[in-house]
Amino acid sequence: MISKKKFKSVLRADLKVAIMGPSGYTGHEIIRIILKHPNVKIKLLIGNKSEGKQISEIFSSLSHINLPKIKSLKAANFSNIDIVFSCMPSGNLDSIIHLIPKNVVVIDLSADFRIKDVKLFEKYYTRHKNPKYLKKFTYGLTEFNRNKIKRSRYIACPGCYPTSILIPILPLIKKNIIYNNDIIVDSKSGISGAGRNTKKGLLFSENYNSFKAYGGGDHRHIPEIESCIYDQTSKKVNIIFTPHLIPINRGILSTIYLKGDALLIQKTLFKYYENESFIQINDLGEMPKISDVIGTNLCRIGILQHNKKNHVIVTSVIDNLLKGASGQAIQNMNLMFDLPEELGLDQHSIWP
Amino acid sequence: MISKKKFKSVLRADLKVAIMGPSGYTGHEIIRIILKHPNVKIKLLIGNKSEGKQISEIFSSLSHINLPKIKSLKAANFSNIDIVFSCMPSGNLDSIIHLIPKNVVVIDLSADFRIKDVKLFEKYYTRHKNPKYLKKFTYGLTEFNRNKIKRSRYIACPGCYPTSILIPILPLIKKNIIYNNDIIVDSKSGISGAGRNTKKGLLFSENYNSFKAYGGGDHRHIPEIESCIYDQTSKKVNIIFTPHLIPINRGILSTIYLKGDALLIQKTLFKYYENESFIQINDLGEMPKISDVIGTNLCRIGILQHNKKNHVIVTSVIDNLLKGASGQAIQNMNLMFDLPEELGLDQHSIWP
Amino acid sequence: MISKKKFKSVLRADLKVAIMGPSGYTGHEIIRIILKHPNVKIKLLIGNKSEGKQISEIFSSLSHINLPKIKSLKAANFSNIDIVFSCMPSGNLDSIIHLIPKNVVVIDLSADFRIKDVKLFEKYYTRHKNPKYLKKFTYGLTEFNRNKIKRSRYIACPGCYPTSILIPILPLIKKNIIYNNDIIVDSKSGISGAGRNTKKGLLFSENYNSFKAYGGGDHRHIPEIESCIYDQTSKKVNIIFTPHLIPINRGILSTIYLKGDALLIQKTLFKYYENESFIQINDLGEMPKISDVIGTNLCRIGILQHNKKNHVIVTSVIDNLLKGASGQAIQNMNLMFDLPEELGLDQHSIWP
Amino acid sequence: MISKKKFKSVLRADLKVAIMGPSGYTGHEIIRIILKHPNVKIKLLIGNKSEGKQISEIFSSLSHINLPKIKSLKAANFSNIDIVFSCMPSGNLDSIIHLIPKNVVVIDLSADFRIKDVKLFEKYYTRHKNPKYLKKFTYGLTEFNRNKIKRSRYIACPGCYPTSILIPILPLIKKNIIYNNDIIVDSKSGISGAGRNTKKGLLFSENYNSFKAYGGGDHRHIPEIESCIYDQTSKKVNIIFTPHLIPINRGILSTIYLKGDALLIQKTLFKYYENESFIQINDLGEMPKISDVIGTNLCRIGILQHNKKNHVIVTSVIDNLLKGASGQAIQNMNLMFDLPEELGLDQHSIWP
Repeated sequence: MISKKKFKSVLRADLKVAIMGPSGYTGHEIIRIILKHPNVKIKLLIGNKSEGKQISEIFSSLSHINLPKIKSLKAANFSNIDIVFSCMPSGNLDSIIHLIPKNVVVIDLSADFRIKDVKLFEKYYTRHKNPKYLKKFTYGLTEFNRNKIKRSRYIACPGCYPTSILIPILPLIKKNIIYNNDIIVDSKSGISGAGRNTKKGLLFSENYNSFKAYGGGDHRHIPEIESCIYDQTSKKVNIIFTPHLIPINRGILSTIYLKGDALLIQKTLFKYYENESFIQINDLGEMPKISDVIGTNLCRIGILQHNKKNHVIVTSVIDNLLKGASGQAIQNMNLMFDLPEELGLDQHSIWP
Repeated sequence: MISKKKFKSVLRADLKVAIMGPSGYTGHEIIRIILKHPNVKIKLLIGNKSEGKQISEIFSSLSHINLPKIKSLKAANFSNIDIVFSCMPSGNLDSIIHLIPKNVVVIDLSADFRIKDVKLFEKYYTRHKNPKYLKKFTYGLTEFNRNKIKRSRYIACPGCYPTSILIPILPLIKKNIIYNNDIIVDSKSGISGAGRNTKKGLLFSENYNSFKAYGGGDHRHIPEIESCIYDQTSKKVNIIFTPHLIPINRGILSTIYLKGDALLIQKTLFKYYENESFIQINDLGEMPKISDVIGTNLCRIGILQHNKKNHVIVTSVIDNLLKGASGQAIQNMNLMFDLPEELGLDQHSIWP
Repeated sequence: MISKKKFKSVLRADLKVAIMGPSGYTGHEIIRIILKHPNVKIKLLIGNKSEGKQISEIFSSLSHINLPKIKSLKAANFSNIDIVFSCMPSGNLDSIIHLIPKNVVVIDLSADFRIKDVKLFEKYYTRHKNPKYLKKFTYGLTEFNRNKIKRSRYIACPGCYPTSILIPILPLIKKNIIYNNDIIVDSKSGISGAGRNTKKGLLFSENYNSFKAYGGGDHRHIPEIESCIYDQTSKKVNIIFTPHLIPINRGILSTIYLKGDALLIQKTLFKYYENESFIQINDLGEMPKISDVIGTNLCRIGILQHNKKNHVIVTSVIDNLLKGASGQAIQNMNLMFDLPEELGLDQHSIWP
Repeated sequence: MISKKKFKSVLRADLKVAIMGPSGYTGHEIIRIILKHPNVKIKLLIGNKSEGKQISEIFSSLSHINLPKIKSLKAANFSNIDIVFSCMPSGNLDSIIHLIPKNVVVIDLSADFRIKDVKLFEKYYTRHKNPKYLKKFTYGLTEFNRNKIKRSRYIACPGCYPTSILIPILPLIKKNIIYNNDIIVDSKSGISGAGRNTKKGLLFSENYNSFKAYGGGDHRHIPEIESCIYDQTSKKVNIIFTPHLIPINRGILSTIYLKGDALLIQKTLFKYYENESFIQINDLGEMPKISDVIGTNLCRIGILQHNKKNHVIVTSVIDNLLKGASGQAIQNMNLMFDLPEELGLDQHSIWP
């Protein structure tokens, strides 16, 4: 691995990347971005189930692309690798994290290392297989953890729902300008957020023409959101969260019900994010659409005064596979290696 | 017109129907239902813009159907008509209601006569052209106004959003088992709810792949909902309402955030609606999907305990063109003429 | 079983039905139709994988319906059953058909008994497990085999693609008014046609926003179509067939390229089908849409003269789960038991 | 305008662009590409209907972008402009083409100058308002007209359907390896191909859940395709063409029915396009999906041997707004100004 110090002096040198679990949607997205990133090359693809295959056999959209054949973890050689992106489903990386050499940066897109409290983790997930690594990982919500991320070798990228929720509310809680401690968040996600799993509930015909709430009132993302709020603001806030499935491929829209002054909220967010490349605060009353961010790493936020005094409605939209997953992962990589955060991510939305 | 008294004695006689504004989505739906209703015949179609056309020219789905040619209002003869369904957009019937003979039953699907307070109406809509008729209309939320509907000649059918919201919450407010007075309602509707209007925002490409909130925090349906709650329960409740557009054709899902005991709420609703044909209360924790009701006159309701003590999430689904519009209109007609409420409406959902 | 003779004298008596393989899309559709059919009752549901479950657990759209619990084949008692609908995937019924008592009518929706020539069958499918039954089955293309169907106890319902293709071309080949012997058929189907199988290729995200040809140039439906043409007309016609997947749930549109006179073709089809309830021939130049038939048992056909002399384009649309599967199955049942063919099937299309 | 000669010596200098008709889908796409193109800047936006507006008011996806306000044609100053992209609907540029200064390159995305024969043009469109300009325009099918395009100042970009059809068949006709002179082409397009017009037929609810053929057997693209074939090969070929609308936003798939040897066809196409950046020939039997090209300037082509001897099925897919419109326009611009053709266009497909 290029040492970070050394790297700064060899700007434009190629960072060498391995991708674990390349055959799902976030894996495809990481590959798609890196193929056009000027400073990064894919050197290693690791996938036990797809061992021996070309990526062009797995994704017809990449049928003309040549990359090294997929290897099993056993056969993988990390000696020339600077960064590992783990795109495996949750519950995989924790059992093998110790096999990755210590000088390799690890950026994980799963939930394995997002929650630091092992008891809380195990309440919502399963037994953690490497709890001592929990503290080594930094929560990769880029706009809020830049210093820590830069100093870290292990990044746990936030979930897609938490990203869409934390970006609009963290500055408001920090600045103490919302009155309600129980925050209702009604989120809606495209179906790629559920991953490339062959489950009956994810079949085309079960979702087209339909829409539903899911997740049982005790969704795994609630402790992640509340923990992050506490870490960033030392405040205990209750998130009342209901996720829904929209029959589209990409995108999350979160509708957040706050009490406060709409104009003050708009101004506060605008000022807070003034210098951020990927956060756009709309004019008061202008609500964003999911199609405004598809194919981008943007989070767009709209604020609306309700006719009931003090009630304010905030909606945020992201592309769940970009700012909600692979895009934020690349943004963190850029940050860690002193590259401009926008590299590889500076596209406008594909519309219509 | 057959007098209602007389009608009861001539069960199976044909009711003769006129449809005003037959060329939109609710007009199509009324026609579709009546064509298979055993006791009703379409005798008159009225539409100034489509005067002289056959319905088969307007809807290719009905290209094999013979109905009388569409007439202008001027040329329409109501002398043999028992019932008028008005499927015109809001802001039309109020200016011509007095031209319909007094012995004809009028069932309006627009917003013109839903709100009784003319000032409140004019705040959200436009100047009312026949305010003295406001009091003559009965709000046609069938399950709650049966006696009034039966005695009335003028029915204002509820809006699709209000129907999806009032059915789950009215029994709970009546029975005094929810604690919060500010009720957050996050509703999502298929795009047919916006009508058959050639606006840029309703084009296919502007909606596919997208999802958005709309309506500005001061939506027209808020006073309708709050007025009905007051009429039914004498309680003033604040509805914090945000509508969203789902890129599907039909269906509304409303997510309602309550404080109370989930099991008590489920049991109360179950008992309240036990004998209703069109209301289905799911088991605790079972959330309904929009596809569960497409093509039916059903409202299905799910109740979920959130992990935060006392927070309860209720979701309701309806087909916006059936229970939310034309289906409820026919249900009211059946009720008014002492027919079984299910006549013409007893279909299971088209799935998938 | 009610003998057919006897049945004729006890019109309105209840036919007792068993459904094998009730948990897929055609199973749901058979159940949905029968629940509203005035002369038929579901008495037995057979499914080895879902043994012991209620149908309400399998389909949330039917969560309020009470039917007998699903039994394994072993536990099934056919003694009171008049009709078995087999909705199992192809390759299942052939191995158990001999276990169904001989006095029970069997209506199969799979491909197991559609092709009479066992060699041809085994070229396209797999080894047939009961070839001696092949001759016992009648090909259930209702409009062309009425006499045989009435005399038969075993019906092999046509595939959805073949139904959409044979209805428009059989009368033209019979009447000898098309010149081309190689007929190009470009078909497009909604995704429910692929069944309720948990395959990666049927996931929502793999199909939304996309469209593709599939099937390898040697599709299983080609021999079925060519065999039926030969049986009905004694002519050998070559079908050049390409199926495609549309990202919608229901519906097939087949575009058929003929040589002949467009007006003669339109008139011939119109006259041929004049007295059929479920076949609608559009005016010359009026091409049907899939949405014109969703939720109906109709086949609608449009005919268009191309600007190249003699080239004629014919498009047909059906709902693949109704006229293409369960609807035609019920139509055959009605025919076999001397009921009006329309019973249970007389709905107009759900639109939009 | 930078002279092309001069330009070659000042590589990396900024080309200055005007866009006429920026508020439709191809306008948005041109803007989206140019905003990330390293050598081009948008200096002028012209739109009579949207005069005085910011582009950020027209497209919420570009709400954070600053561009010059839209001007009327009258107020437009072309003195610093190198290139005009005309994204106006057909029937507009022909009446004003003479107002654009002669030293400005004009790249037209409409049909106004695609067909050179004014009689043929007027048979399919309307009276041409500047027929003397017809000969000045070069048909911008990049891969086939490079030399002419480089020498030209006026480019008529091909229609989206013709692009998807000509790329697969032109090399085969040139090389004389297909036997049929009547070529059946069954094309399917996403709905953005119909433009951003507020017509009833383009509403969301009229297209979702549906699919249809349209265009009357005498589609405007037929003479364009046949003319281009004749220009390129001196052969008269009959195109039997049927377009269909798929309920998705982007993408065209054309299914082309040929007679010949599938392997020879695959090899011929592979060799012909070996050095092209934007044409990908799949392995024999591998049929491309529309999602393989969304967001790219690619044309992907699959070839399949049918079970009927000599019948070969070819499918091609493009993104109608990129290779079918704005992408090919930019490719032509790059070519004309000696830039690498891939500049601004080298993205992988957004999937899923």
